[in-house]
Amino acid sequence: MKPRETKRQDMIRRETSRDTGRWNTVAIVGVGLIGGSIGLALRQRRMAGKVVGVGRNADRLKRAEEVGAVDVTTQDLAEGARQAELVVVCTPVERIVDTVLAAASECREGTLITDAGSTKRLITRALQGKLPAGVRFVGSHPIAGSEKSGAEHARADLFEGRVAVVTPTRSSVEGDVQQTADLWSGLGASVYLMSPAAHDRALATTSHAPHVIAAAMARSTGRGDWPLTGGGWKDTTRIAGGDPELWTQILLDNRENVLASLGRFEKSFSAFRAAVERSDRRRLARLLLEAKRHRDAVGN
Amino acid sequence: MKPRETKRQDMIRRETSRDTGRWNTVAIVGVGLIGGSIGLALRQRRMAGKVVGVGRNADRLKRAEEVGAVDVTTQDLAEGARQAELVVVCTPVERIVDTVLAAASECREGTLITDAGSTKRLITRALQGKLPAGVRFVGSHPIAGSEKSGAEHARADLFEGRVAVVTPTRSSVEGDVQQTADLWSGLGASVYLMSPAAHDRALATTSHAPHVIAAAMARSTGRGDWPLTGGGWKDTTRIAGGDPELWTQILLDNRENVLASLGRFEKSFSAFRAAVERSDRRRLARLLLEAKRHRDAVGN
Repeated sequence: MKPRETKRQDMIRRETSRDTGRWNTVAIVGVGLIGGSIGLALRQRRMAGKVVGVGRNADRLKRAEEVGAVDVTTQDLAEGARQAELVVVCTPVERIVDTVLAAASECREGTLITDAGSTKRLITRALQGKLPAGVRFVGSHPIAGSEKSGAEHARADLFEGRVAVVTPTRSSVEGDVQQTADLWSGLGASVYLMSPAAHDRALATTSHAPHVIAAAMARSTGRGDWPLTGGGWKDTTRIAGGDPELWTQILLDNRENVLASLGRFEKSFSAFRAAVERSDRRRLARLLLEAKRHRDAVGN
Repeated sequence: MKPRETKRQDMIRRETSRDTGRWNTVAIVGVGLIGGSIGLALRQRRMAGKVVGVGRNADRLKRAEEVGAVDVTTQDLAEGARQAELVVVCTPVERIVDTVLAAASECREGTLITDAGSTKRLITRALQGKLPAGVRFVGSHPIAGSEKSGAEHARADLFEGRVAVVTPTRSSVEGDVQQTADLWSGLGASVYLMSPAAHDRALATTSHAPHVIAAAMARSTGRGDWPLTGGGWKDTTRIAGGDPELWTQILLDNRENVLASLGRFEKSFSAFRAAVERSDRRRLARLLLEAKRHRDAVGN
């Protein structure tokens, strides 16, 4: 989507600076689909001299190394953090705050830390004022997930043509924000700056509520009907295949915004249902046309 | 999906007979995505000596001919019907009954007529007892649509690996049912036999209600949030890009079943929402897991 199509007041498109990110050593904490794809892309684009994969699970670290997502691995966060100029925390949402704090207490002064979590407000707030002097943190969220997980599904082009949101706070330093933006630009994403709160409000509508709706649909489709599902049902419910534990964290972390978005959906849903109930042909066609216009405007 | 996975009592998988369909002349009435794909597949698989494209719009007929979906075209239904041994009616749902009756009054004795409509109960009922002696009709529904329309999107492999439902009634003759099943088997689909009523109940859940839900979601996502949509939102709302007029017809034709399916969805949706509202972590994780199990069982 081109920047001029953006109608949000609280979102700024950030152009890449000339100095696209180049780091000697990047530590990626959590080497699943997102972390693995960042590693692959950093290495293929020669944006990092060395990529260190950090994780708790030896098998998963090994897999990340095998697919070429990282140069070396360690289960010791301190060891990974100490050698890195940039630490990207790609753990499940619930572990991001603790992981950032742990990395911050071990890393060298001047290290930049960012994350890739699907929510931003609570994470940013929990970190506010908690980081040692000289350690820099700016939150991020690359909008490029999948119902798949694990480094074995990592792709170097996962972020190409996608959007990454960088979420500075009032105390963020411009240079840190630009460096964080350059990381994602360097990986091929278009970067938007938003406050953590604005990010969470928007993502509740564009990602978290849709997950609930897709899951509710999959759950209400009984076994007997499965053979009669086609491409429509499969597309509509695809994200319901995502990890239940990760999504529980995201939905509860962003609970109030999710409930507000579900409320807006339900209002829209009720309008459609009422039109069907009343066999109100003109109204139903009108509602479907409005939906189509939104969908067509977003594109594929 | 393999036949043994089928748990429905009212659905029978029909194997292809040895004599896979071979017709001298097939008339396809309505040469859009479905009609065009049938034509392409019939011609590429040499299942028809000649495919006649019938339609009201000269431009659309021309396009169908250009993409190789039909051998010849006519705007005169009578002309097309008279020369065909098989007539496949691929018009919008609302025009199927009239088109079948018009074709039936013009075609030769022994001609088999089928359709490709997304609903079956009202169509089959409206035709009951109305067809001239010697004209055979069995309803069909290939579950292979798309949000795209028009012969320019037709694909010879559209039905490969998909399901086609054939909907005999009590008065259907077994030989006619088998020939209809063989048409779809010949085009690469797995064929299931169901009553028109059972078909409509199932499709309300697997296709019609999902359309309403996807459309309600697209409609409730405001312009400001569009740049922040990712693959999840795009998948979940893809079918909302479908033709509003066609979908109005389908939803109202199958109104009662659609309302029942929407009710089941809403019950499931309310369970998710209540779990989010109460921050009931265990319950939410459980619901998401149930959804994931359904989705994973269906596959891609």
